[in-house]
Amino acid sequence: MSLVLIAKNRDFTSLKKALLEKDPNLDVEIWPRVENKERVNFAVCWNHPKHVLNSFANLRAVSSLGAGVNHLLNDEDLAEDVNICRLITGSLKEQMAEYVLNAINNYRLHTITYADQRKEVKWESHSSIPKKHAPVGVLGLGEMGEDVATLLLQQEYIVNSWSRTKKEIDGLTSFAGNEELDDFLGQTNIIVNLLPLTEETEGILDLELFKKLRKPGYLINVGRGSHLVEEDLIYALDTGHLEGACLDVFETEPLPENHPFWNRKNIMITPHIAAITPAKEAADVIIENYKRALSGMELLYEVDRNKGY
Amino acid sequence: MSLVLIAKNRDFTSLKKALLEKDPNLDVEIWPRVENKERVNFAVCWNHPKHVLNSFANLRAVSSLGAGVNHLLNDEDLAEDVNICRLITGSLKEQMAEYVLNAINNYRLHTITYADQRKEVKWESHSSIPKKHAPVGVLGLGEMGEDVATLLLQQEYIVNSWSRTKKEIDGLTSFAGNEELDDFLGQTNIIVNLLPLTEETEGILDLELFKKLRKPGYLINVGRGSHLVEEDLIYALDTGHLEGACLDVFETEPLPENHPFWNRKNIMITPHIAAITPAKEAADVIIENYKRALSGMELLYEVDRNKGY
Repeated sequence: MSLVLIAKNRDFTSLKKALLEKDPNLDVEIWPRVENKERVNFAVCWNHPKHVLNSFANLRAVSSLGAGVNHLLNDEDLAEDVNICRLITGSLKEQMAEYVLNAINNYRLHTITYADQRKEVKWESHSSIPKKHAPVGVLGLGEMGEDVATLLLQQEYIVNSWSRTKKEIDGLTSFAGNEELDDFLGQTNIIVNLLPLTEETEGILDLELFKKLRKPGYLINVGRGSHLVEEDLIYALDTGHLEGACLDVFETEPLPENHPFWNRKNIMITPHIAAITPAKEAADVIIENYKRALSGMELLYEVDRNKGY
Repeated sequence: MSLVLIAKNRDFTSLKKALLEKDPNLDVEIWPRVENKERVNFAVCWNHPKHVLNSFANLRAVSSLGAGVNHLLNDEDLAEDVNICRLITGSLKEQMAEYVLNAINNYRLHTITYADQRKEVKWESHSSIPKKHAPVGVLGLGEMGEDVATLLLQQEYIVNSWSRTKKEIDGLTSFAGNEELDDFLGQTNIIVNLLPLTEETEGILDLELFKKLRKPGYLINVGRGSHLVEEDLIYALDTGHLEGACLDVFETEPLPENHPFWNRKNIMITPHIAAITPAKEAADVIIENYKRALSGMELLYEVDRNKGY
């Protein structure tokens, strides 16, 4: 029995070390140099190459290395009886909530404008946007979305959420289903995307959605790059449907050098760093799920392959 | 009986409007065009010109237009029986706490570096600084400092404070007096200055203090410009005693065009906007203190002229 770590161009040294510190008897292989493929029962993957999972005949479960699992759900080679799970840790949720709060505050308090003014030797003040004039709408209220909404409510933001089913959180205005999406957008200035990537949510952040937001609109995308129709964002910024955006995820990563986003001063770009799982915490969840997979138990953060999340 | 508003180059339209909305019978004069100087009993001042207060023979009290009062305490023309008060409102404290939290998060999460990387078309990630590695030390625990410390504790920061007397706040490590200053600094990476400006605190932010901080050190000055020895900050940044600074106040404001701070990419400069009193809230406090002054009551936020705050 062994566990394999699979990703392109990724250094697994610290994760392997953390796994072995937690369980010295663990047999950990690192792709592509796998000694005994027959023995592999569990894989941890991040943007794995096509067909690579085919070579492990005794695979019981696959874990994503993060919250996103679309790279696994889209893998046609993955047998139906192989369970899929996400990797979510407490600090992942905490980092995400803090990233979103910081992005919102930087928009409201004009942080980047002031940083630019230093370079221009310019002393000019700008009125900050009061919280009551900037209701936040959280798209997707899963593990991450709930923590983001809770932190924002604690900071006295007006918070709306949109999800498949209604949520009961003190102070939150919950909208559910396609029939309530327009109402949700009409009451939201700052939209934060934390949806899972599915067929239904791909491209959801498009011009039609931006037009329905309360004005001025601001976009924070910490979901997946494919949630956003990138050319629609440029158009929405140029035509005033949005004032700005803060993006941590992109259709192609790293963001290509000739991409138009690099030239837009009202787009804040971070290189997919909003929430990074610390090796030690990742090791705990991976080992727990490895043991659960071996004994046939339900996994932590197991994905419903029909729902897609 | 009347009330006068005094400041150089300041538009008092909205404050006067808010005062009259609250009390239509109020007699409000705006310096320098004061019709009847004899009738003035109460002045609201911000960096008022020398000797201007001399001309009001029946002055009973003077309010600052903000939290700072050193421009009033330093006014030798102000008779000893004229009471001095500060102007503090709920939203002033809330803005200050939010500004400080945002400055700390931007330092920990490398916000400005990422904003610069967009311009350089650079995709590079930087490890954020965990909260547990960045204890914050609040210098001065008055009305503002207490709200800052409370918000940071709520966000699970490690928070130390330094003040004249010990403070009892859940989770806060309180240091008091000169004999405990070095201990306080040795346990603090991010220092936030919220002291009142007095003879004792002027120039307190100097190289000697920066050297005693835990490394890496970071400075946030939201007190007064004269708390900071400006050339010591440049030296501390150049020699690595500090990693960076976020400054909202300066010895001379607006910051002169040839000032060296403008050229430092590790200094964040904001034009004295951390906490701005909204006219309506200011009007409430000013009218309350005007009435108190007329009846001889103790003022809200009255300053002890011996202590200097």
